[in-house]
Amino acid sequence: MPSKNKKEISFISEIRVRFTETDPLGIVWHGNYIQYFEDGREAFGREHGISYLEQKAQGFTSPIVKSSCEHKLPLRYGDVATIKTTFINSPAAKMIFRYEIFDPQKRLVCTGETVQVFLDENGELVLTNPKFFQKWKEDMGI
Amino acid sequence: MPSKNKKEISFISEIRVRFTETDPLGIVWHGNYIQYFEDGREAFGREHGISYLEQKAQGFTSPIVKSSCEHKLPLRYGDVATIKTTFINSPAAKMIFRYEIFDPQKRLVCTGETVQVFLDENGELVLTNPKFFQKWKEDMGI
Amino acid sequence: MPSKNKKEISFISEIRVRFTETDPLGIVWHGNYIQYFEDGREAFGREHGISYLEQKAQGFTSPIVKSSCEHKLPLRYGDVATIKTTFINSPAAKMIFRYEIFDPQKRLVCTGETVQVFLDENGELVLTNPKFFQKWKEDMGI
Amino acid sequence: MPSKNKKEISFISEIRVRFTETDPLGIVWHGNYIQYFEDGREAFGREHGISYLEQKAQGFTSPIVKSSCEHKLPLRYGDVATIKTTFINSPAAKMIFRYEIFDPQKRLVCTGETVQVFLDENGELVLTNPKFFQKWKEDMGI
Repeated sequence: MPSKNKKEISFISEIRVRFTETDPLGIVWHGNYIQYFEDGREAFGREHGISYLEQKAQGFTSPIVKSSCEHKLPLRYGDVATIKTTFINSPAAKMIFRYEIFDPQKRLVCTGETVQVFLDENGELVLTNPKFFQKWKEDMGI
Repeated sequence: MPSKNKKEISFISEIRVRFTETDPLGIVWHGNYIQYFEDGREAFGREHGISYLEQKAQGFTSPIVKSSCEHKLPLRYGDVATIKTTFINSPAAKMIFRYEIFDPQKRLVCTGETVQVFLDENGELVLTNPKFFQKWKEDMGI
Repeated sequence: MPSKNKKEISFISEIRVRFTETDPLGIVWHGNYIQYFEDGREAFGREHGISYLEQKAQGFTSPIVKSSCEHKLPLRYGDVATIKTTFINSPAAKMIFRYEIFDPQKRLVCTGETVQVFLDENGELVLTNPKFFQKWKEDMGI
Repeated sequence: MPSKNKKEISFISEIRVRFTETDPLGIVWHGNYIQYFEDGREAFGREHGISYLEQKAQGFTSPIVKSSCEHKLPLRYGDVATIKTTFINSPAAKMIFRYEIFDPQKRLVCTGETVQVFLDENGELVLTNPKFFQKWKEDMGI
C-alpha cells in the first residue's frame, strides 16, 4: 500500500525567456533561474490554492531559507521553457518544492529545490504547521 | 543678483556596471539606466539629507510619476560610470531630478529626468510642499 | 481620404506582476515598466513579424535611444495587466512605439514611448530605412 | 606540515542594498543573494586577477553549474552588507567559491556556494585546468 506521504503533487507552467534575462554570452544568467522557480511555485500556488496571497490572507508569510540550483544546459532568448514544480511532503512546518525546467526540445536544463518556513503576523517563526497549511495538505490528500 | 531658484545642487556618484546589467549585445540594457538614476538620486539623498529613508521618517513617500531617458553611447560590463544628479527647484510640491551619466572616458552616455510627488501616510497626494521638504530647501539655500 | 501614415497598428498582450517586481510600498517599482514596455513591444513583434530575433536575422539591431514613462496609478503583486503597444509611423529610419498599460479594472495606469534606431552588423548607425523594415511597412499597409 | 591545498584565499567586499532589491516584506528578495555572490566573486576576481574579463581575455568563460544559498537573517533597504568570498581549492577543472554575507551588525545573514566549469572559445567543456588557471593557482601559492 503506498504511503500517503509519497503522493506527488505537481504543476507544469511555462515561461518565456526575456531579452534582459540573458547575458553577454547569449544565455540566461544563472541567477534568473531562482526567479523561474518562483514563477513555477506561484503558478503551482494559484492552481492548488496556496499562493503567496492566499498565505498572506491567513496571516502568514513563508520566506525561503534554503535554495539550490543545478544547471545542465542553457536557455536562450525567446525560448519558451516548461517548469515542473513539485511539492515535497514533510512532517516539519516547512514547504519544500522541487523544480525541473525543460527547454523547447523537452531537454532538462535545470533542477532545483527551495525550502520555506512560516512566519506569523509578528514575524515570529512558527514551529508547528499553521492550520491553513494542515488543512490544505488534508484537502490535497497528503 | 542671481535668483535663489537658479541655484543648482548636484552630487556626483559612481556605479560599476554589473555583468547581469548587460545584454546579449554586450552593452547595458536600456532599462537599467532607470536603476542608475535611482542610485544617483539616493546617493544625492544620503549626501544632502533627503533620501528615501529620511522622507519615510517624516511620514512621506515620493513615487516617481514621470521619467525620461536619452541614450547617446553604450556602457559595457566592468565600466565604472559617473552619475551627476542635479536637483531642479520648482514651486510645485514635486521633486525633480536631472541625471547625466558619463563613461570612464568622461563622455556623456545618457541623460534623464524624473519627477516625484509626495504621498502622506495614508497614501494621499500632498498638494503643498511638506514641511520637512520646505525646511530642506531653506537649509539648502533655495 | 485618410493618409496611409495615419494607420495605427497595435497589439494587446498581458503581463502578470511578479512578486520581485514590487517594492516595499507593495507596488510595482517604476523602473519595471520599461521591462513591461519591452514585453509589449516583443509581443507586438512576434505577432507582426518584427521581433528582435527577426531583425537580427536580417543583420540589424535596434537599440533604444529614448524612452519616457508617465505613471497614473500603481500596479500590485498578482495583477494581470494589459499592454497596448502601438507602432507610430515615421519617415525617419526609426521605430517608435507607444504603450498604454491597464490594470485588471481596465484603468489606465501608465503610458510611455520608446524610440529605436537601426545599427548594422558592424554596429554602425543606419540613416535610411533598412530594406526589411521598408518591406515590413509595405506589408503592413503603412 | 599544512597542505598547500588547505590555504584559504578570501576577499571582503561591500554591497549597499538597493530599494529595488527589497520586496513587499521590506527585506531583500532571496534571489538577489545570487547577485550579491556574483558581486563578491567579481570583487575577488578583480583583486586577485581572475575576473570574468581576465578569463575571457584568455579565451575562456566559466558558467555556473551549481549554486546554493542558506538564509539566516534578512537584509533591509539601505543596509551596507559585507561579503566574504573564499576560493575553495579542488583538483578538478572547476572554480568553487564560498560566500558569507554579514549585516551592518556583523551578524551572518547568508551563506552560499557556487561551482563553475570552464568552456573554451568554441563553448566546449574543458576537462583539465586551463593553463592560465593553473598558473594563477601557482601564483597564489595553492
